[in-house]
Amino acid sequence: VHRIPVGVLGASGYAGRELCAIISRHPGLELTFATANAQRGERLRLGNGREITFIATDDAPLRDSALVFSALPHGASGEWVERVLADGARAIDLSTDLRPGNGATREAPYGLTEVTRDAVRGAQAVANPGCYPTSILLAILPLIARGLVAPGATINAVAASGVTGAGLTPRLDLLFGEVSEDFRAYGIGNQHRHLNEMRAVLAAAGTDADLLFTPHLLPVARGILATITVPLTTTLDDPNAIWRAQYAGEPFIEIADEPPSLRDVVRRNVVRIHARHAAHVRTPTLQVFSAIDNLVKGAAGQAVQNANLALGLDETMGLPA
Amino acid sequence: VHRIPVGVLGASGYAGRELCAIISRHPGLELTFATANAQRGERLRLGNGREITFIATDDAPLRDSALVFSALPHGASGEWVERVLADGARAIDLSTDLRPGNGATREAPYGLTEVTRDAVRGAQAVANPGCYPTSILLAILPLIARGLVAPGATINAVAASGVTGAGLTPRLDLLFGEVSEDFRAYGIGNQHRHLNEMRAVLAAAGTDADLLFTPHLLPVARGILATITVPLTTTLDDPNAIWRAQYAGEPFIEIADEPPSLRDVVRRNVVRIHARHAAHVRTPTLQVFSAIDNLVKGAAGQAVQNANLALGLDETMGLPA
Amino acid sequence: VHRIPVGVLGASGYAGRELCAIISRHPGLELTFATANAQRGERLRLGNGREITFIATDDAPLRDSALVFSALPHGASGEWVERVLADGARAIDLSTDLRPGNGATREAPYGLTEVTRDAVRGAQAVANPGCYPTSILLAILPLIARGLVAPGATINAVAASGVTGAGLTPRLDLLFGEVSEDFRAYGIGNQHRHLNEMRAVLAAAGTDADLLFTPHLLPVARGILATITVPLTTTLDDPNAIWRAQYAGEPFIEIADEPPSLRDVVRRNVVRIHARHAAHVRTPTLQVFSAIDNLVKGAAGQAVQNANLALGLDETMGLPA
Amino acid sequence: VHRIPVGVLGASGYAGRELCAIISRHPGLELTFATANAQRGERLRLGNGREITFIATDDAPLRDSALVFSALPHGASGEWVERVLADGARAIDLSTDLRPGNGATREAPYGLTEVTRDAVRGAQAVANPGCYPTSILLAILPLIARGLVAPGATINAVAASGVTGAGLTPRLDLLFGEVSEDFRAYGIGNQHRHLNEMRAVLAAAGTDADLLFTPHLLPVARGILATITVPLTTTLDDPNAIWRAQYAGEPFIEIADEPPSLRDVVRRNVVRIHARHAAHVRTPTLQVFSAIDNLVKGAAGQAVQNANLALGLDETMGLPA
Repeated sequence: VHRIPVGVLGASGYAGRELCAIISRHPGLELTFATANAQRGERLRLGNGREITFIATDDAPLRDSALVFSALPHGASGEWVERVLADGARAIDLSTDLRPGNGATREAPYGLTEVTRDAVRGAQAVANPGCYPTSILLAILPLIARGLVAPGATINAVAASGVTGAGLTPRLDLLFGEVSEDFRAYGIGNQHRHLNEMRAVLAAAGTDADLLFTPHLLPVARGILATITVPLTTTLDDPNAIWRAQYAGEPFIEIADEPPSLRDVVRRNVVRIHARHAAHVRTPTLQVFSAIDNLVKGAAGQAVQNANLALGLDETMGLPA
Repeated sequence: VHRIPVGVLGASGYAGRELCAIISRHPGLELTFATANAQRGERLRLGNGREITFIATDDAPLRDSALVFSALPHGASGEWVERVLADGARAIDLSTDLRPGNGATREAPYGLTEVTRDAVRGAQAVANPGCYPTSILLAILPLIARGLVAPGATINAVAASGVTGAGLTPRLDLLFGEVSEDFRAYGIGNQHRHLNEMRAVLAAAGTDADLLFTPHLLPVARGILATITVPLTTTLDDPNAIWRAQYAGEPFIEIADEPPSLRDVVRRNVVRIHARHAAHVRTPTLQVFSAIDNLVKGAAGQAVQNANLALGLDETMGLPA
Repeated sequence: VHRIPVGVLGASGYAGRELCAIISRHPGLELTFATANAQRGERLRLGNGREITFIATDDAPLRDSALVFSALPHGASGEWVERVLADGARAIDLSTDLRPGNGATREAPYGLTEVTRDAVRGAQAVANPGCYPTSILLAILPLIARGLVAPGATINAVAASGVTGAGLTPRLDLLFGEVSEDFRAYGIGNQHRHLNEMRAVLAAAGTDADLLFTPHLLPVARGILATITVPLTTTLDDPNAIWRAQYAGEPFIEIADEPPSLRDVVRRNVVRIHARHAAHVRTPTLQVFSAIDNLVKGAAGQAVQNANLALGLDETMGLPA
Repeated sequence: VHRIPVGVLGASGYAGRELCAIISRHPGLELTFATANAQRGERLRLGNGREITFIATDDAPLRDSALVFSALPHGASGEWVERVLADGARAIDLSTDLRPGNGATREAPYGLTEVTRDAVRGAQAVANPGCYPTSILLAILPLIARGLVAPGATINAVAASGVTGAGLTPRLDLLFGEVSEDFRAYGIGNQHRHLNEMRAVLAAAGTDADLLFTPHLLPVARGILATITVPLTTTLDDPNAIWRAQYAGEPFIEIADEPPSLRDVVRRNVVRIHARHAAHVRTPTLQVFSAIDNLVKGAAGQAVQNANLALGLDETMGLPA
């Protein structure tokens, strides 16, 4: 069987490793290189019992690949995407550099696959969404599309993420001894980029609703749960019917009968959504719960989903549902 | 030094054990009995190197105590409070049985100490607040007292609790193998009682605001963090000044410069609060973060704080700040 | 593609669920039933997005299956194996009931696959090994086979297991609030059966060495690490060469250059082994480290490995290496 | 009440913070300074609601203190101890620099308090023991003192420590995402120093036994459990009687009826010991289990215990038993 050669830039972090693992089990892709400057020469164990040795990013054989994933840091990734494209390969960028709301220098379709599928199909470059935006936007866009959000409302997304969302970086506040048995909101760094990204997507969707976004750090390795409160124009008889209709037939979206838990979604390329009306509240108010694995549907899995579409493969190929 | 004899009914659960531990280190109290029907005859190690042997609840020497704490289950606790009072001792009830909003059969001051201190001083019986209500009410009552909550607003409390909040009960969903690496909202049982309790207190405070309350289960042993969103009538220059003024001189309330974390409060009888205006939202909206140890300020610690006041002792005696 | 119909008795526990998940992804097997008396009527989500509904064990359609796995409790499992065999199906028993050292009433090959492969191939019934015995016996049998264990020595296995090893049972001592942040040796129940099992296998291997086995409970969900100390007859130049030779070509055994960690093996059907000579000790003494996932190589994975052999399929089919 | 002024050098790590917390609650000591070069200017919250601001180590007012604790890194600590002594204050050194077996340049009593109490009383400088040596030596020295260890035996200490034992250092392998759900032996760095330390103490105790020491990393914040196997000269009727006799009246040593767990000892300045004969082993073999909090009895607590003796205070003052 012919496998399409692909590479990974910035493969030593959590998202990069997850990418390598998914690619190694993908029946249509062949991992040809994985770069990591600091870990150059070290071997990474892949899911199929094989290994790959990290090379320096400057040594990446871009021309030999049909598609390159970049999990390089924000700021550095964009220029590597240009090199990849100049060398004739497609690029899936997991950084913020091509995403809306963050001053992207290149137009590229936003890879929130279930919403932007047509634009991603056959694309040269794709801006892979952030993890928080994936969980939150897939949950609220169906309400906006139907004009159900109350005019001038504030959509309130209180979200919590496992620590891999902060990356594989040697920060004191991410040590086991600091994170274990703790829980806290945090307000610096990443989530501003994510807020910009979500605000840009919502604005493009034509809503005048504000978005309030409050991320929290969970003492778990993986997973994001967003608890989203949305003032509605009206009370719905069967709120979950909205998402069932919007996402009918989607292989990676699950509408649940109960609020989802992280355990329902970890190691799977799915978002799991449940909605219910708030009780004891006079104005129609919906709570939407949305859970993903931040490294799979929130990063590497969705990146491969987008790569499948860009390369003309079956969208679900190689992805753990 | 004379120590006042006190007992604990229902001492084998998490709150009951915490009560016994605090009492054992309390310079003004002497633990004379601890009951636990199923664990009768077993010994509980106390904080000072001593032990106490559980006796059956029916064997509790109520008359020998000046004050009895009841950590018996909801439904069973109320009648034991009556027996305690009939025997001439004071009672601090940690169950919902005397709390507002849950059909209490006896009038008893609500022991949200910093708010209801005068009613608790010298009281015969005190309804000790629930853990979620303690964290949420101490955070929002100052805004209500000042008329700052927007008319007809919904106050949105998204809260997360460690597993000891669910008690020491052999439930499959509380096993380590189920809770570890998970996070989820839950909507049954306890929190309805807590919502009733909070709604009753808010109604008594004269607000027309609705309260939306969504509890979540955290993979930690102890601690509650509430992330509360409040639509305001106006923008505040220095939001934290509200709580600094309201709680000036309070030994067990901390107003922080950053959102509190569980680590700031565990094993301490404090609530730690921080407020900030929501950014990128057009209507004045405040986020108030409130953290407590659910077993200390949310249960046993506040119970001893109330007991100190009921007995005429210094309010801070024996409490870990 | 024809898939061989198989069923699972006692499918609601941790091992039973893992079995159902592996079978659902197995290209050669079809899960036809899963029994769980207490959870009868509940649905179990399988790895491929499908679900199966638990039925009562008495309702199991044994005749329709070519092979039945029993993850029923010790004591109850053996008689169900007899019924399975009487109905003409093969049986893989995950309980102790057929294992050596515990009074088995039926002769059945012991399914420590890499050691007993020939006996398992085509077998009607297989006694699937315990989790601790799998990790410990695969590590020490090569030393015994080569006569390298010092005469009259005591082999000292200090092992630690994640909590799923204790099963999905509502025990207070397995609650998250009790296990988190704890670690302890334990000496009751299961491990005696495991010690009997290991002693019987070692005796059959012809060694006069004693075995000292001390299990500990880890605050993790999955995984066993055994740290085994073995007095040797002589010092070895390259200790790991023993296992590399013994297990050359084995797809599910990894000989590592460093002591293995649980992360190396979780969710994989492998045992990972590393050996090193003890430093600063005058008599030749080897330390052998052995890690497995207690639910995969220690239970459900090895069971499917044995089923593959019993059914004449490729031994590695459907197993995550 | 007069309190004796003491300072802490290197106060920003886990042991240093624990020291500051214990001192702040100590009725006889006054914390006059806490140094931390990188955190200079930051405030540390103390146990009594007060705070202290870190100063640079070079700015430490050594002359104003009666005693100085050094939790500076190994290698740097020793010279600061000299400065402290030159300035006329006493010194308790928590690093390895003064400990036996590691090339100490100064003679100082080893502060394994229950064993070396007389040498510590009134001492100018004390070498505070390592965490692993504290747990292991207190467990095995009574057997050596009684000549019960079999001649030429190997004492086998398999021990596991929480991550705070590795210090508050930004290492990738100590991130929550790496440690959670993992367990592994490790063999580099610290534990060599600890092995040297234990071998030196054992040699001084006159035993010819070898010591095999294998540390493991636990996914918990605090605590060490050592599982120690000792070949004996004879079988003992009541093994725990050895420790009960040796440590009769010791306020910080507990002899338990069951193997201790970390939960029994965390946040307490105690070692908890239990011994039992190995079953099914022909030669008399004892297993001794020993648990401590690595930051309290294994570091800061024992340091204060030694400081109390050096200063002529009651040995138990300010210590959580």
